[in-house]
Amino acid sequence: MRVLITGAAGMIGRKLTAALLARGALGGKPISQIILHDVVATEVAAPHLAVVGDLAAPGAAVALIAHRPEVIFHLAGVVSGEAEANFDLGYRVNVDGTRALFEAIRAAGYAPRMIYASTTAVFGGPFPEEIPDDFAPTPHSSYGVQKLIGEALLADYTRRGFMDGIGLRLPTICVRPGKANRAASSFFSGIIREPLNGLPADLPVARDWLHTMASPRAAVGFFLHAAEMDLGAVGPRRNLTLPGVAVTVAEQIAALTRAAGAEVAGLIRDVPDPAVWAIVQTWPRRFAASRARALGFRAEDSFDQIVQAYIEDDLRKG
Amino acid sequence: MRVLITGAAGMIGRKLTAALLARGALGGKPISQIILHDVVATEVAAPHLAVVGDLAAPGAAVALIAHRPEVIFHLAGVVSGEAEANFDLGYRVNVDGTRALFEAIRAAGYAPRMIYASTTAVFGGPFPEEIPDDFAPTPHSSYGVQKLIGEALLADYTRRGFMDGIGLRLPTICVRPGKANRAASSFFSGIIREPLNGLPADLPVARDWLHTMASPRAAVGFFLHAAEMDLGAVGPRRNLTLPGVAVTVAEQIAALTRAAGAEVAGLIRDVPDPAVWAIVQTWPRRFAASRARALGFRAEDSFDQIVQAYIEDDLRKG
Repeated sequence: MRVLITGAAGMIGRKLTAALLARGALGGKPISQIILHDVVATEVAAPHLAVVGDLAAPGAAVALIAHRPEVIFHLAGVVSGEAEANFDLGYRVNVDGTRALFEAIRAAGYAPRMIYASTTAVFGGPFPEEIPDDFAPTPHSSYGVQKLIGEALLADYTRRGFMDGIGLRLPTICVRPGKANRAASSFFSGIIREPLNGLPADLPVARDWLHTMASPRAAVGFFLHAAEMDLGAVGPRRNLTLPGVAVTVAEQIAALTRAAGAEVAGLIRDVPDPAVWAIVQTWPRRFAASRARALGFRAEDSFDQIVQAYIEDDLRKG
Repeated sequence: MRVLITGAAGMIGRKLTAALLARGALGGKPISQIILHDVVATEVAAPHLAVVGDLAAPGAAVALIAHRPEVIFHLAGVVSGEAEANFDLGYRVNVDGTRALFEAIRAAGYAPRMIYASTTAVFGGPFPEEIPDDFAPTPHSSYGVQKLIGEALLADYTRRGFMDGIGLRLPTICVRPGKANRAASSFFSGIIREPLNGLPADLPVARDWLHTMASPRAAVGFFLHAAEMDLGAVGPRRNLTLPGVAVTVAEQIAALTRAAGAEVAGLIRDVPDPAVWAIVQTWPRRFAASRARALGFRAEDSFDQIVQAYIEDDLRKG
């Protein structure tokens, strides 16, 4: 079985690739080749394949799908802050790239499993205290709109039988290893990661702000589960809001303190950023995620577990 | 003030044009020119202008927007049955055409009022008994998905300040004058229109099927209200589910009987059509439409009024 990962050079893409290489199989079927696609170069040993390109460029998606991957993890995308700053780039990558990929699959005439990385940023306020699964998505960001369009396409291409798709609305992934990125949510990771690495970290929002998060380890688990589960059980509503841990920034910092001490947590500085605060306030805080839980998607139970996952998976390996 | 109508040759487009010509003004401002756009030829006297073309064709939308219409009624679209039968055509017209129009407006750099014809077919079951305004749209048709994508674009282009948009989720429009069209909902009009014209009519669904409808007269009223109202009162959720009359097919027939007698109503023949029934069953039945009602959108109060509107506006003029 061939597996394709778009956006493979990204953080989740790299962790997912490592997990697939370690397992060597999906749903009991041996993986013969993993194809890693990204706009930046990735490296992988034969028989696996790394392809550099822009999915929205003419012919790019068709060439990729000519490999006939049976499972596709479509992670490629421009993140929220960048999509807001660059309107054209966001639509080109997040909408045109996704549509080109889906169209290439339709043209190829086989129906692979498509696991699509969506986001809880499809929701826009005003919100109820907890967002139910059937709450209408009305995004307040171009990123959210672009991901929502991908969800709508995924549902239609699946209903038509062109693919067997599932969209995963990821909560904020935390703790992200490496450097800060242009997602407005980047600080949720930064305030844990930087202090654990002995560095100061800026906190741009209020400490009582509540937000839902899951670890990169949980995210990889979501994608693997989506690749192996019985999609018939999902029914026609193929875009799922995934579970996470809902905590305030203060509770994040308390968990960091428990794991690493007050001195480490003291490296966090309150530096309000009106631009980030304006975006973050439009985001949902807490989700029911009832359908995803019933379908076997599992996140952490506490933010302490999220800190621990970072220490085990990234800090000690860094 | 210039006004643009896309899909102007369609039934609502023609009635809206007639209403605008009769009023001569919108929101107290005189209309200097109405530009009628459609893929088929329309006729209108100078100073008004009829343009034939395909919005998705290169340059077409830019040429239209070069007239700088202050108010745009975007009615152009491929209907549900046709979008289901022809996947490429539906996406080209309903998605690419809409995006080309919005992009031309963004490029022109002024922010006209955009009134977008959407549909209650954005909703897909399972449904609650009455669909609230914040119920998640999960369409079960390509038409519904395409209209939903247009809604998402409209919301983002409005939030960005590129246009001042409002999306109107029209209930089924009934009684449509003229011939049956390829919309799967066509029979809801046919069973009233054909008998009133002395012709037999096929009823493809069960008589206890409940559906929400508004007259063409009400639809024109929706569009005029959307063109004149204070859009600031709508807030960021710019796509509204509009009100209508929720009645069973049997209640439709009872209203026809009251208006024209049992002999006329006897021209309806039960001819089950599994293809139409399959589509219709995926549609919502009853809506709260609370926000639209609060914002002053008005439909009929009974199906008798809908029958009467047809008799007054179309049958006697036919």
